Amino acid sequence: MAEKITKRSDDYSQWYLDIVQRAELAENSDVRGCMVIKPNGFAIWEKMQRALDRMFKDTGHTNAYFPLFIPKSFLAREEEMAAGFAKECAVVTHYRLKTVPGQGLQVDPEAKLEEELVIRPTSETIIWNSYRNWIQSYRDLPLLINQWVNVVRWEMRTRLFLRTSEFLWQEGHTAHATQKEAEEEAKCILEVYRTFAEEWMAMPVLTGPKSEGQKFPGAVYTLCIEAMMQDRRALQSGTSHFLGQNFAKAFDVQFQNQAGQREYAWATSWGVSTRLVGGLVMTHSDDQGLVLPPRLAPIHVAIVPIFRKPEEREAVLTAANQLATDIRSLPPEPWHNYDPIAVKVDDREQHQPGYKFNEWELRGVPIQVELGPKDLANRACVLKRRDLPGKEAKEFGVPLASAPTRITELLSIMQANLLERARKFRDANSFEVNSYEEFKKKIDEPGGFLWAHWDGTRETENQISAETKATIRCIPCNRPKEPGKCMVTGRPSAGRVVFAKAY
Amino acid sequence: MAEKITKRSDDYSQWYLDIVQRAELAENSDVRGCMVIKPNGFAIWEKMQRALDRMFKDTGHTNAYFPLFIPKSFLAREEEMAAGFAKECAVVTHYRLKTVPGQGLQVDPEAKLEEELVIRPTSETIIWNSYRNWIQSYRDLPLLINQWVNVVRWEMRTRLFLRTSEFLWQEGHTAHATQKEAEEEAKCILEVYRTFAEEWMAMPVLTGPKSEGQKFPGAVYTLCIEAMMQDRRALQSGTSHFLGQNFAKAFDVQFQNQAGQREYAWATSWGVSTRLVGGLVMTHSDDQGLVLPPRLAPIHVAIVPIFRKPEEREAVLTAANQLATDIRSLPPEPWHNYDPIAVKVDDREQHQPGYKFNEWELRGVPIQVELGPKDLANRACVLKRRDLPGKEAKEFGVPLASAPTRITELLSIMQANLLERARKFRDANSFEVNSYEEFKKKIDEPGGFLWAHWDGTRETENQISAETKATIRCIPCNRPKEPGKCMVTGRPSAGRVVFAKAY
Repeated sequence: MAEKITKRSDDYSQWYLDIVQRAELAENSDVRGCMVIKPNGFAIWEKMQRALDRMFKDTGHTNAYFPLFIPKSFLAREEEMAAGFAKECAVVTHYRLKTVPGQGLQVDPEAKLEEELVIRPTSETIIWNSYRNWIQSYRDLPLLINQWVNVVRWEMRTRLFLRTSEFLWQEGHTAHATQKEAEEEAKCILEVYRTFAEEWMAMPVLTGPKSEGQKFPGAVYTLCIEAMMQDRRALQSGTSHFLGQNFAKAFDVQFQNQAGQREYAWATSWGVSTRLVGGLVMTHSDDQGLVLPPRLAPIHVAIVPIFRKPEEREAVLTAANQLATDIRSLPPEPWHNYDPIAVKVDDREQHQPGYKFNEWELRGVPIQVELGPKDLANRACVLKRRDLPGKEAKEFGVPLASAPTRITELLSIMQANLLERARKFRDANSFEVNSYEEFKKKIDEPGGFLWAHWDGTRETENQISAETKATIRCIPCNRPKEPGKCMVTGRPSAGRVVFAKAY
Repeated sequence: MAEKITKRSDDYSQWYLDIVQRAELAENSDVRGCMVIKPNGFAIWEKMQRALDRMFKDTGHTNAYFPLFIPKSFLAREEEMAAGFAKECAVVTHYRLKTVPGQGLQVDPEAKLEEELVIRPTSETIIWNSYRNWIQSYRDLPLLINQWVNVVRWEMRTRLFLRTSEFLWQEGHTAHATQKEAEEEAKCILEVYRTFAEEWMAMPVLTGPKSEGQKFPGAVYTLCIEAMMQDRRALQSGTSHFLGQNFAKAFDVQFQNQAGQREYAWATSWGVSTRLVGGLVMTHSDDQGLVLPPRLAPIHVAIVPIFRKPEEREAVLTAANQLATDIRSLPPEPWHNYDPIAVKVDDREQHQPGYKFNEWELRGVPIQVELGPKDLANRACVLKRRDLPGKEAKEFGVPLASAPTRITELLSIMQANLLERARKFRDANSFEVNSYEEFKKKIDEPGGFLWAHWDGTRETENQISAETKATIRCIPCNRPKEPGKCMVTGRPSAGRVVFAKAY
């Protein structure tokens, strides 16, 4: 607890790393580019998984598991995918080590694989290779499958959670009898992602298709949710791809339709990853530490008992534990997936209350409860919200009897407040820009989301990105119908798209 | 649904594969030794995970995530572990592919790793390498961490769920300040595993240490749960290792104890895997298909509406759906982790009731409900249990109003009955054997668990195993105090140990 966290205004990038390290969310491992997700960080990911998994199941999906290994030839079958992922594939070439006298443990040259295996960077190929045997008739469709797994995309420059060589994610892979149904699926998942981002993560997102230059290798088009971090840079937070018949053709997945004819199946795939944990941190946290939206907080309430004299100790601790029990016994509610509210009574002997308050603040626990002898004499306590600064955060003299109810109210209020605050921040940092000159100026200072006209071509997109390092983040679903002229070429544009520098 | 399942008595091994295939639990993938876990199979694993995860958390453990890759040199640091796993390691040597004109996608020779990375066969080494930085003082202990991950141990001969090159498991890795505490942890987890096996899987297990010859590479000793399958062979179903200070020494993990001295930390590790799904199938299923203990059944109740005339259709379907709603609204109970009872109304138009009954039987759904016009006229239905044969299984004229309650009663009764039946089977196939001659005869016919005296030496253990293919499965915790003489050498033995042929 010694050193201070770097301020956002001093060095945003270092601030982020400080938070991740000090709140013990993750750390770099000794394996290049791979992180260790520590218990505090993993607990957030588990809450995310739980909420998303329920949403997937409520929309008819089931989980399964496909192999980690992908034969090199599978990857080669879908050209765009091969081109898109070849440069970042970890490759298994041998299946045995042996001890060589004087040299220790070595790869056994006699145990070379006939065909190299790639660690999955994404699983379309291996899954569609299985689907060939699963899909015979329109009666076998739709196939709505998801898996929660690790994937590897070799990265040279990494940043905890946001970009690592190995990461955890879910990947949905669905097969459909018609194009229309597959496109509806891709949209349905986009809406699941938007709902999750906004209602659980309290992170407002733009939704819409990616430009051709930013789509997934192998997709016909890619839909995305796109968020703004506190440094005004964009974070692609989830993608849902309409894959057309590309993978069905690459893996010969045909079915007999109702008219008795053979057709290729239509596909989608979609995913969100542990990157979301980084997005959560960057959206809400402050210079004091982590700020967690209550619906994803592994611990909701920390009760810090305060006493000076030994004779006060027992009474205060008893009251603290009783309050914890009362909070835990509140009826489970859908907003936190029917889990009881998680309460910690911080009865550690070796630390002072001040230290404890700082630590719970750093760890982003939504509500702290202070409970000392004077409070106890009044059968009351002090509640402190994590989302407001200084004195604003505190409610004094909250009766112990009504504190549990007040806490659940505050948790809901905080959840809504964090979303509202993030939305205001994003909107205040979104600008309509009408000339390329203005664009080039604004993209550096102040940055943010720049809504500008673009002629729809790959060339112009590449030019802008080469000259400004900004990319098209998304063609927003709900953009105003406002035809205009491309800020670079002057050619016609159907409406504004959103540019930003991105993680 | 066409072909019959092979009978257990005809070919047990084929029967198992038939069940796994026909109930759509898993299949072999095109990647050698790796399986695809299909939705029906994965749903069982998810139920297992959910129950175990809660038990781990209730005993103070948290989840985290460590890298998939282990630098070769890490593995080499603990000698026994290196020797134990070197022969079955998948090795990553390159991090890039490239397209070579005329040859397609090839490994890029310029992207060779300086140090090869092994896909984790188990994670002690990479985890203890992290623990070195996490553990400074006795105040940092105990460290009670688990992870749910995939691991790879290259196998030449595989069998779905029971032995595959890639499998899913949980691995717990704990660090402690004292030997006593670490040994208690290993025992505590053994008890968690026993409870899970017996109370959730309805699979009775022996518990106790492994012999020296059967322990985990790197462990001081290994505790295990050991079950008997219906072909009387043993299945090692979970292990909990006391690792002493082996890994702390290999990775230099020292802490300052309360007296201010530096000491090496004490370790345990423990795991169960998707192998348990295979064990579940082999313990309870029959010649008609899967039999699932209710606490791990993804679907508890299948309601099959029966009607001939179109005018009966609506009334029967309405009643079926109402019954499903009534069952789902029963208050959630701890025995199924507070999930509502899962009910399926099988309203598929294209299949006859007979087909449906067979299919739900094959899939192991604990309770089938038959509901036709005559039942409806009496406001009643027929309940059919999966665990009893023929007419015994049916309860006729169960009033619709009380059916939900009766169903929950039956689920509990079935859970207990399956455990009881499996225990009787195991006990009926366990024999005390007093001479090596008798042993050699009995181990082939009838097989089973043979309780015999052994002199405690590795040599004798190896001799028995070489001559009979039986291994020591466990030195049972609760064995009678009965000193005797080794059946092979005549040397003294402190008590009987359990031999069997094993998967």
